[in-house]
Amino acid sequence: MMETMDKPFEIDDIECAYIGNYSSDLFETQGHTAPIVADWLGMTPIPITRIENACASSGSALREGAMAIASGMYDIVLVGGMEKMTNLPTEGVTDVLASAADGLYEVPAGLTFPGIFGAIAKAHMDRYETNLDHLLKVGIKNHNNGALNPKAQFNVTIQDMMDRRKARAEQRGQPVPDWQTELDFLHDEQANPWIAWPLRLYDCAPITDGASCILLVSSEIAHNFTDRPVSLAGIGQASGKPLHDADELTSLSAAKEASRQAYEMAGITADDVDVAEVHDCFTIAEIVATEDLGFFVPGEGPRAVDEGRTALDGDRPINTSGGLKSKGHPVGASGVGQVVEIYHQLRGEAGERQAKKSKVEVGLTHNVGGTGGTCVVNVLRME
Amino acid sequence: MMETMDKPFEIDDIECAYIGNYSSDLFETQGHTAPIVADWLGMTPIPITRIENACASSGSALREGAMAIASGMYDIVLVGGMEKMTNLPTEGVTDVLASAADGLYEVPAGLTFPGIFGAIAKAHMDRYETNLDHLLKVGIKNHNNGALNPKAQFNVTIQDMMDRRKARAEQRGQPVPDWQTELDFLHDEQANPWIAWPLRLYDCAPITDGASCILLVSSEIAHNFTDRPVSLAGIGQASGKPLHDADELTSLSAAKEASRQAYEMAGITADDVDVAEVHDCFTIAEIVATEDLGFFVPGEGPRAVDEGRTALDGDRPINTSGGLKSKGHPVGASGVGQVVEIYHQLRGEAGERQAKKSKVEVGLTHNVGGTGGTCVVNVLRME
Repeated sequence: MMETMDKPFEIDDIECAYIGNYSSDLFETQGHTAPIVADWLGMTPIPITRIENACASSGSALREGAMAIASGMYDIVLVGGMEKMTNLPTEGVTDVLASAADGLYEVPAGLTFPGIFGAIAKAHMDRYETNLDHLLKVGIKNHNNGALNPKAQFNVTIQDMMDRRKARAEQRGQPVPDWQTELDFLHDEQANPWIAWPLRLYDCAPITDGASCILLVSSEIAHNFTDRPVSLAGIGQASGKPLHDADELTSLSAAKEASRQAYEMAGITADDVDVAEVHDCFTIAEIVATEDLGFFVPGEGPRAVDEGRTALDGDRPINTSGGLKSKGHPVGASGVGQVVEIYHQLRGEAGERQAKKSKVEVGLTHNVGGTGGTCVVNVLRME
Repeated sequence: MMETMDKPFEIDDIECAYIGNYSSDLFETQGHTAPIVADWLGMTPIPITRIENACASSGSALREGAMAIASGMYDIVLVGGMEKMTNLPTEGVTDVLASAADGLYEVPAGLTFPGIFGAIAKAHMDRYETNLDHLLKVGIKNHNNGALNPKAQFNVTIQDMMDRRKARAEQRGQPVPDWQTELDFLHDEQANPWIAWPLRLYDCAPITDGASCILLVSSEIAHNFTDRPVSLAGIGQASGKPLHDADELTSLSAAKEASRQAYEMAGITADDVDVAEVHDCFTIAEIVATEDLGFFVPGEGPRAVDEGRTALDGDRPINTSGGLKSKGHPVGASGVGQVVEIYHQLRGEAGERQAKKSKVEVGLTHNVGGTGGTCVVNVLRME
């Protein structure tokens, strides 16, 4: 965010800070990370606190920052998130992430997050007319967006990946696969293996190291920092029962409740949202999110993807950043990372990945922890 | 706290919750504990968030709860802490706790928390006239208090422990040790072995499973919950450099800054504090705390212990609950546990361990995370 700040500020101006992080404990054998961040950044002795709500950690951190300002105790609060995941091999990462599920009733049954979202996808396919192509098309769209995002971990389209594979085969004198379309490529079990049916590799967000950060200030002083502030118009956070105890698999109750709170505070409805970053840890998660948020009625999410409504040039652009799928998913950092993208979109400075619609004034972020145990929804507005 | 509530309330009245926990990740391979707590207690879909600042986790959680109320978003907030430490063998616990120190500069040098506080004790002995007896007398005092606390993990005096050992030796026909005083017993290397010189076993808080919880409500509605509310008059939180980078070893800068904030908000000075719970993870930590908080000038803390000023019948009773030393130290729960004790003291309902002085109107809690990376200080007042 520093690069887009219109006016300079000093680190000593920051009065309080929050850092969202899922599990530096298990990824790095390092707890109590908040004051270490303060020490490295030269921010001591300001109060700094680590917030943990699994993959919604920095979403929750932002909410704490907002309330700290609303309380009147502080005017300038730094809010960020971070995760260093690649210390461990892939299986280790899967295990660490699984510990965000219920360790009594879910993990011992063999559930990992690909398995959990695979079950959600299967339930959605059973209940509605959702098919494998719908899932894969979410990934194609998000890679199309991420290819336009220089900060994306995989800033490359599925088409590019397919073409590169064909070119490589040709160079090596191997048989060139006869994929004609991205869907041909994505349906190839060699190129895109099953992870947890009906989810394939390219249905899953990657393992990512990353950090995110924004400066929250009280509205009275926002113009000291930029001539074009973006306001946090609504925040919502809710808890939900773990998946094993949930009422249904095709919807996350916490997402519905968190968005209800955020819409109410902002005084808007789902229809007023121009652009959104939603928690696409798996392709099915984006479809479920767009239904939970009220963008589309339940079961209509897949058709909206099919019709291109969620693409950059659609009427409801979703995950213009590339989403977790293409931008990457450093879990504790993702919630604030979403807000960074919406900030750029509302200011009209997202460059090639700017949403094409004429009006981009209201944005939303949707950040999920665990199997829907936590959901944080923010509504942002260009003043 | 429920038992001392004057008026009943329903769990559905709770609007928001925070849970302080250091590392369920490493102790129990369970992250994202907040919504699991909400699910078990039947509190979904209210927002619930885990706060992690090492052993100051629930101290920080309480501060978030207070700001959530001050923000105007909520009126009734549950704040608690928990830690389940005994899953692991003692060496494992020591390693998990060490991960709250700096993993780049402290842990690889072989530092564990007993070692860190041993170094602090040595520095205090070098700089002032502190001796081993001063340390041991903190433990004697705190066990005297904890023996009066039915919820203490070790609700037994050092004298009792000594007498039991002698009786057991006699029963078994073994030579009966000739300990005459508690100090004789505590200086016996067999009975009280060195852990990290100059700290012995009985200088260290135990490994504990435990939880704590309070209900925070806005002052406007406090009388709906009790006829005798205790108010949170001041809160302070500060970060400090890790020990390896600190300016001095005989004081924690974060404690001085956090208490400055809390005193300022409450409009009091250290002299106004009638009773305090301080973070005695090791006996030396209590002495340093009483100096950092301004109760005694630097170097006078040990003499205050000698003179009985910090005992139940002293002019400045410290750790009437038994402190972490005797009550136990379930790390993420300790900060809110301290507040529970002060709540009882200010209401005059601490029974046999009620501070003896005539006026007990202002209380303080002092909760430290890591090697002083975080400190949270609260000032509580009887209205």
